[in-house]
Amino acid sequence: MSNSSSMGNDKKNNNPKIILTGDRPTGRLHLGHYVGSLKRRVELQNSGEFDKIFIMIADAQALTDNADNPEKVRQNIIEVALDYLSCGLDPSKTNIFIQSQIPQLTELTFYYMNLVTVSRLQRNPTVKSEIQLRNFEASIPVGFFTYPISQTADITAFKATTVPVGEDQEPMLEQAREIVRKFNSIYGETLVEPDILLPDNKACLRLPGTDGKAKMSKSLGNCIYLSDTPEEVKRKVMSMYTDPDHIRVEDPGKIEGNCVFTYLDAFSSEEDFKEFLPDYNNLDELKDHYRRGGLGDVKVKKFLNNVLQKQLEPIRNKRHEYEKDIPGVYEILRKGTEAAYEVAQQTLNEVKASMKINYFDDAQLIKVQSEKYSGIED
Amino acid sequence: MSNSSSMGNDKKNNNPKIILTGDRPTGRLHLGHYVGSLKRRVELQNSGEFDKIFIMIADAQALTDNADNPEKVRQNIIEVALDYLSCGLDPSKTNIFIQSQIPQLTELTFYYMNLVTVSRLQRNPTVKSEIQLRNFEASIPVGFFTYPISQTADITAFKATTVPVGEDQEPMLEQAREIVRKFNSIYGETLVEPDILLPDNKACLRLPGTDGKAKMSKSLGNCIYLSDTPEEVKRKVMSMYTDPDHIRVEDPGKIEGNCVFTYLDAFSSEEDFKEFLPDYNNLDELKDHYRRGGLGDVKVKKFLNNVLQKQLEPIRNKRHEYEKDIPGVYEILRKGTEAAYEVAQQTLNEVKASMKINYFDDAQLIKVQSEKYSGIED
Repeated sequence: MSNSSSMGNDKKNNNPKIILTGDRPTGRLHLGHYVGSLKRRVELQNSGEFDKIFIMIADAQALTDNADNPEKVRQNIIEVALDYLSCGLDPSKTNIFIQSQIPQLTELTFYYMNLVTVSRLQRNPTVKSEIQLRNFEASIPVGFFTYPISQTADITAFKATTVPVGEDQEPMLEQAREIVRKFNSIYGETLVEPDILLPDNKACLRLPGTDGKAKMSKSLGNCIYLSDTPEEVKRKVMSMYTDPDHIRVEDPGKIEGNCVFTYLDAFSSEEDFKEFLPDYNNLDELKDHYRRGGLGDVKVKKFLNNVLQKQLEPIRNKRHEYEKDIPGVYEILRKGTEAAYEVAQQTLNEVKASMKINYFDDAQLIKVQSEKYSGIED
Repeated sequence: MSNSSSMGNDKKNNNPKIILTGDRPTGRLHLGHYVGSLKRRVELQNSGEFDKIFIMIADAQALTDNADNPEKVRQNIIEVALDYLSCGLDPSKTNIFIQSQIPQLTELTFYYMNLVTVSRLQRNPTVKSEIQLRNFEASIPVGFFTYPISQTADITAFKATTVPVGEDQEPMLEQAREIVRKFNSIYGETLVEPDILLPDNKACLRLPGTDGKAKMSKSLGNCIYLSDTPEEVKRKVMSMYTDPDHIRVEDPGKIEGNCVFTYLDAFSSEEDFKEFLPDYNNLDELKDHYRRGGLGDVKVKKFLNNVLQKQLEPIRNKRHEYEKDIPGVYEILRKGTEAAYEVAQQTLNEVKASMKINYFDDAQLIKVQSEKYSGIED
């Protein structure tokens, strides 16, 4: 009886559920990050369904297209860490680490590069669109071109089973699975194939900028940051893009492409209506009134401001606490990085053993070769 | 006085002459390697002109186009090491190490990849011709495509000033210098620009195969290995490609494209004539006779055999000594690798400090960021 029970435990331990995800530290995190990934990560962390969670501050990846501006990357590591902690990522449950401090990742990348062809990388749709986005054209840095391979190293180093990202990242996961399968078929079963975990709420996938542009972007100045002051948040909400044809209060208004309503879709609840706008029971009623005409933008924006302030206030307060102890935040990162280092080293050891490039630890190799030559001598 | 003398020493130490070179361990080394590089390396080692010499067994680079046959690479490390030692590379003067055991090289490669564009790699003539040679066409492994960057890591990790290779490798050195200049211009003076050291004897550059094909190649079976037995060497010499129109002894013979004479160009001396073929004073007289007619191939081949046996015998004997102690050879490799590891780690530390990605060691970074946030709090 005790035997079968311990077998059950072993089986569970052999198939741990492990998350790996992260962000490039090129700026403070904004509401787009929050609804697109951060909020979900905290939920996953608190669900208790995962054995290990690794969140990576991907400074090395950020350098692939910021090689000439390392200071930007360097200064934003602490910003991303503060944003993580203030949103509720808990270092006792989630391992936050800095990518560049795990050299094993570059070693895995190096060997995985032998398992992927140049033309395969060129066909990767995510890489294609990222190259367009950055106007690289003929001058793509090799490090950027090959980053799907580096991402595979990140994922497999921690034997991640689960990568919670948007569906635009599916080609990256497919590339990772291909490398894992190829490695395992050549060198023997070693690496774990990761699955994508897509967001469950399609509406939350992409939050537009406050100017109505499809994506929040630091350079467009259309982001609401998690670390914005209440005044900044209010100013940004009150100047948000709505329906340009909704000029007078009595005009009928459009919901589609109207940022204020997209944000309310993402953030507001019926409780918010009870608390801040009791004339309406829910968002559908508010939308109906707006469509009919007779509802001014200012009233809706004030409501959105209240909704956002309510959600951002505890995050902001928590951030202020952490900001008082920057060395302590670095200490959290150092500990998380040390733990990640151990796990990555373990995987690398297994990878090198499978590839049989651990010569100095391989007594059998030395023995067989000694025998071969003593045979020639006899 | 003692001050100025110590300054003189410092200056010398700041500009050490350092060699880095090596071979892919994909087979035993042959006469082509010997005249093309090995003999020269031993001369350079014994010249006393270099402060440090690093010779790398490039197993990681060999894996870039042998990913599916790691056993071939693995088994040939000891063969290359035995060939090195038997030719006179001396572990007390020359640091022999195994590339894959220096993980710092993959880390340097990773960051250098951000400083080179995809199109720049595509223009590299050496890469172009190597791709043709291997019939890769559309399916070039990324690791192979990017190996000029990896070579730059190898060279710069040891701050090599001098890379003794053939002129076909000049584009690789140019790529290395470009990366060094780009790195130093972005991150500050850190890396050392390497120079190529070309062979001084053009005739020795390329030894043809015993079948007259331009290059010795294991797959063509046209190599004389440094580790061949006397019988094997004799058999290969006696069946060498000469002049196909030189049928009878009295026929005039051609020297151009006649392997036996190309080998004599590379290996024979006037002393060899005194010892083995005193009818002739030197190679020119022998060639003249062959051209006129009346000199049979067998006689020339027997002379070449004597010349080669004389040079190969001490190498072979030394090899047999080392073959009796394979664990001892691995110990030499381990010590050389440990020493190389220290040097590469020192360079990597400097690289990371220049890139300012040594966050946890950067007290100033933490201090400035703490002050920034305490400012906000005030």
